[in-house]
Amino acid sequence: MADQRLPAESDIIARLRRIAPHPAARSLSDDAAVWLPPLGRELVLTHDAIAANVHYLPGDDPSDIAWKLVATNLSDLAAKGATPRGVLLGLTFSQEDDRWTERFCDGLARVLGEYDTALFGGDTIRADSTTLGCTAIGDVEPGTSLARGGAMVGDDLYVTGSIGDAGLGLAAQRGDAPADKYLQRRYRLPMPRLAMGQGLFRAGATAAMDVSDGLLIDARRLAEASGIAIRLHLSDVPLSTEAAARLPSGTEGRLLAATAGDDYELLFSAPPSAADTLHSLGKATRTTLTRIGGIVAGAGLSIVSADGSELRPERLGFEH
Amino acid sequence: MADQRLPAESDIIARLRRIAPHPAARSLSDDAAVWLPPLGRELVLTHDAIAANVHYLPGDDPSDIAWKLVATNLSDLAAKGATPRGVLLGLTFSQEDDRWTERFCDGLARVLGEYDTALFGGDTIRADSTTLGCTAIGDVEPGTSLARGGAMVGDDLYVTGSIGDAGLGLAAQRGDAPADKYLQRRYRLPMPRLAMGQGLFRAGATAAMDVSDGLLIDARRLAEASGIAIRLHLSDVPLSTEAAARLPSGTEGRLLAATAGDDYELLFSAPPSAADTLHSLGKATRTTLTRIGGIVAGAGLSIVSADGSELRPERLGFEH
Repeated sequence: MADQRLPAESDIIARLRRIAPHPAARSLSDDAAVWLPPLGRELVLTHDAIAANVHYLPGDDPSDIAWKLVATNLSDLAAKGATPRGVLLGLTFSQEDDRWTERFCDGLARVLGEYDTALFGGDTIRADSTTLGCTAIGDVEPGTSLARGGAMVGDDLYVTGSIGDAGLGLAAQRGDAPADKYLQRRYRLPMPRLAMGQGLFRAGATAAMDVSDGLLIDARRLAEASGIAIRLHLSDVPLSTEAAARLPSGTEGRLLAATAGDDYELLFSAPPSAADTLHSLGKATRTTLTRIGGIVAGAGLSIVSADGSELRPERLGFEH
Repeated sequence: MADQRLPAESDIIARLRRIAPHPAARSLSDDAAVWLPPLGRELVLTHDAIAANVHYLPGDDPSDIAWKLVATNLSDLAAKGATPRGVLLGLTFSQEDDRWTERFCDGLARVLGEYDTALFGGDTIRADSTTLGCTAIGDVEPGTSLARGGAMVGDDLYVTGSIGDAGLGLAAQRGDAPADKYLQRRYRLPMPRLAMGQGLFRAGATAAMDVSDGLLIDARRLAEASGIAIRLHLSDVPLSTEAAARLPSGTEGRLLAATAGDDYELLFSAPPSAADTLHSLGKATRTTLTRIGGIVAGAGLSIVSADGSELRPERLGFEH
């Protein structure tokens, strides 16, 4: 069947060309993209790759895989306050057929359109297994991109949205738990918190990062980068109604949520004086904000349960 | 043995951190790189990936693989006249051990140092097979980056250096031909023609690209992109002494050289009035330049042999 043949690289490039109308892309027909960045802005650059059987399941919808590939990179830009401008893709395909690459390009068109981001260029090759890489480029006003280091003693610690949805969504997606449209959508189609991220510096935040490997492990990374300690109140970790209904109650459920990963929410610190401005920013960008702890002198992460006792979970999230 | 364990991603990142001193890299400890590009310059962006068993042999020296990964991307920048500034790497490893990644990082340090290019960031993952991606970023004076399209009827067609060395070097590297230090070096360690590329626009060139898939197929691409025809004199294709000694004489040998690929030379067009300036540029940048044909009205590539007859080889190079 025609659908099952392996498309040539030139066929895939022809498909990609249709979603690369930006002049910088030079119709994907030149050696490189040529782009005039917004004058006097700093660039924020990130590259993340995902691999079949590691970061997604072979049966996943190729359109969703494309969305996730781009959206997770845009989440890194969001954490640094950047406005996304363009991506370059490094697509190593193995056995994907015409129908797969068509769906994949549909998903690319969707995510790039949603976030007003251009396809600048990239490379398509064939090899023994599938790896999909994305370089995302955005820009910020110079000096305004928050680092992971920067949290100060006395700051509050906040997280956007809700935590643990994607982990539960993955279980549902795999058939290990009953289906749930909302949770599965949170796993399949992460939404980078761009508007919120772009306002954080001006609102007074001192450090920021995105939560991808698990809230707890990422909080520990923020503490390490900032050279301070974080006291995180586990019972304050925000859960969606859908996640709360599915998780064990109390500490156990919140630990599951806070170590599940794939949240693509923003974790950041800010002094108490910034609270009102931050809540206005949350309202303006339709982002719920939850204070989940504070920055104290010392090092590392301490996790406090509802009764005030300190928890020492065996695992904080995904280590690399 | 310690050397044979698979290094954790964090071990590899620790190695990479040592060769990423540029402040934009944020010690490879943040969500993204943050870089202030040179004010008022256009950026040139490219991403190429290589895969084990496809673009290199599993037995190849990891240091050479790293060199080639970066150098071939810088060759794309050279073709657009850009000065390289930084790279992001997408490294998907499979079974590479500590010693392999150490050698790989040595090669990275070497090539980045040689071309004064920073390691900005990237991603390291583990999957079923090895794919190595590189996004290279450079800059040019706005409006001066030559495209593949732009060659004009009456222009001369030039190529830098010598053609076919890398193809012969690969055969020697594989043991299919006697060893030859020069030819194998040309295969293992391509040298992007950056200085030459940076001078081409000012010297009057009208179109440029790098030769990677074979001189003939790439010349046809330049003709297509420019909407003109190229008449290429096969006997004028420049061979190194080493290649000439190894190739069959006459048409057969030159066809082998001109379809071998992996040359990473520059192919460009320029009007006859630019000849003197171009030769001065070649002298100043220690780059040999050879006129190998001209641009005529029509479409496609015609290959002319020494006796003036037209050749129609079955294959022009590597199709994708």
